[in-house]
Amino acid sequence: MLKVVVIGSGNVAQHLIRVFKKSGEVDLVQAYARDPGQVRLLLPETSITTSPETIIEADVYIIAVSDGAISGVSSLLPFKDRLVVHTSGSAPMEEIDNRNRRGVFYPLQTFSKNKEIDFSNVPLCLESESEPDMRTLEQLAKTISGSVYRVNSGQRQSLHLAAVFVSNFTNHMYSIGNDICSESNLPFDILKPLIQETAVKINTLTPHEAQTGPAIRHDDKTIQRHLDMLHDTNKQTIYTLLTQSIQQENV
Amino acid sequence: MLKVVVIGSGNVAQHLIRVFKKSGEVDLVQAYARDPGQVRLLLPETSITTSPETIIEADVYIIAVSDGAISGVSSLLPFKDRLVVHTSGSAPMEEIDNRNRRGVFYPLQTFSKNKEIDFSNVPLCLESESEPDMRTLEQLAKTISGSVYRVNSGQRQSLHLAAVFVSNFTNHMYSIGNDICSESNLPFDILKPLIQETAVKINTLTPHEAQTGPAIRHDDKTIQRHLDMLHDTNKQTIYTLLTQSIQQENV
Repeated sequence: MLKVVVIGSGNVAQHLIRVFKKSGEVDLVQAYARDPGQVRLLLPETSITTSPETIIEADVYIIAVSDGAISGVSSLLPFKDRLVVHTSGSAPMEEIDNRNRRGVFYPLQTFSKNKEIDFSNVPLCLESESEPDMRTLEQLAKTISGSVYRVNSGQRQSLHLAAVFVSNFTNHMYSIGNDICSESNLPFDILKPLIQETAVKINTLTPHEAQTGPAIRHDDKTIQRHLDMLHDTNKQTIYTLLTQSIQQENV
Repeated sequence: MLKVVVIGSGNVAQHLIRVFKKSGEVDLVQAYARDPGQVRLLLPETSITTSPETIIEADVYIIAVSDGAISGVSSLLPFKDRLVVHTSGSAPMEEIDNRNRRGVFYPLQTFSKNKEIDFSNVPLCLESESEPDMRTLEQLAKTISGSVYRVNSGQRQSLHLAAVFVSNFTNHMYSIGNDICSESNLPFDILKPLIQETAVKINTLTPHEAQTGPAIRHDDKTIQRHLDMLHDTNKQTIYTLLTQSIQQENV
């Protein structure tokens, strides 16, 4: 069984600690964080350390901290030649201090507080400096997910960029939908089946095939009525730009 | 059992014919379309008519045609004082010729060819000119959906506008994600669990609570790297605008 230390106490660290504990196929030997916070609710006090000197030996050290902190945290580790990975979609593998063997263990998913994740189908995107380390990461990844990919740095950054569009920006579309419902005294709930169906549809159709609405139909009358209804200049600009973009893509 | 005639042969007409047939609680007495096309695969030839003069008597006539055709089709109907509704999210109820009693039967969902819809949770948004007609529409709606709303014209148009954001524009975000994957030789499949989770998340969190990503974190380094990676000016503009919009909403 692989011995793992999780470093960090944020959202991703907490989700990883939970899923490793649940898997029963990983020996989660320790969590390290300057301020363990919520992690105290997940692990016994004896498995948590707040000082780098007391980090114990493991097969894989997973740094799950914000991108800007990866370099600093990795340079605090008081050992060398061990496998140390980060979980970031956008930070280069080289952010990790080069005294250790470096890698990436990037779960391509959106993690929120208070929302459990089923890791079994979360794509885990792996990178390493050597084939043996890659095999270790694959072994670890397969204990929690059925969806494991070897992804180089450039591809990983592309995935992270794509994720911003399909997740962060999509959620912002939900947020605008919510605003529009509120203004008309309608419950946001009424939009939820449509939101789910829009997401489910691309499991069987390409996004290109799935596109519907006034933009792709070039229904100028409806487009103009919608623009008139949007009092907010920012929302008008978004509507116009995305309408044009849909039309350009489908020339 | 309510007698229904469906008028039209497009996507929505076909989906309605299918679900009324399946429900067993509606007497779908006829379909009328100038060119019945695909409808011929759904109904026996004797239940289809191509000439308005042969339309038979029913409790509700559902015009499921494009917005621009509602007025013309409704004026072809050779009877008066019957309940005639359209299925459009944005056309006013008054588009229907006023020789008949008018109403709206708007299914708030995205309909694609070759993709079955589970109508049981599709919100049906109803409008009518009188309370008795509203009750007829409610009775009809409840045979196919558990989610039935009385919605006035202004609210319906707001819903349609909100639907453009949460469905059409969201699908365009998927499409851009697909493009980015293709350019990096990555399968679009890798994004699908993230897309599903993003949609599922707003069943338990508000979109505001669910927002994650570089925009809301004001992670300027990642935002700049993403803009550099986007060679396409159109995608850069969308990225910048939506990033600013997320940041404005969360000041």
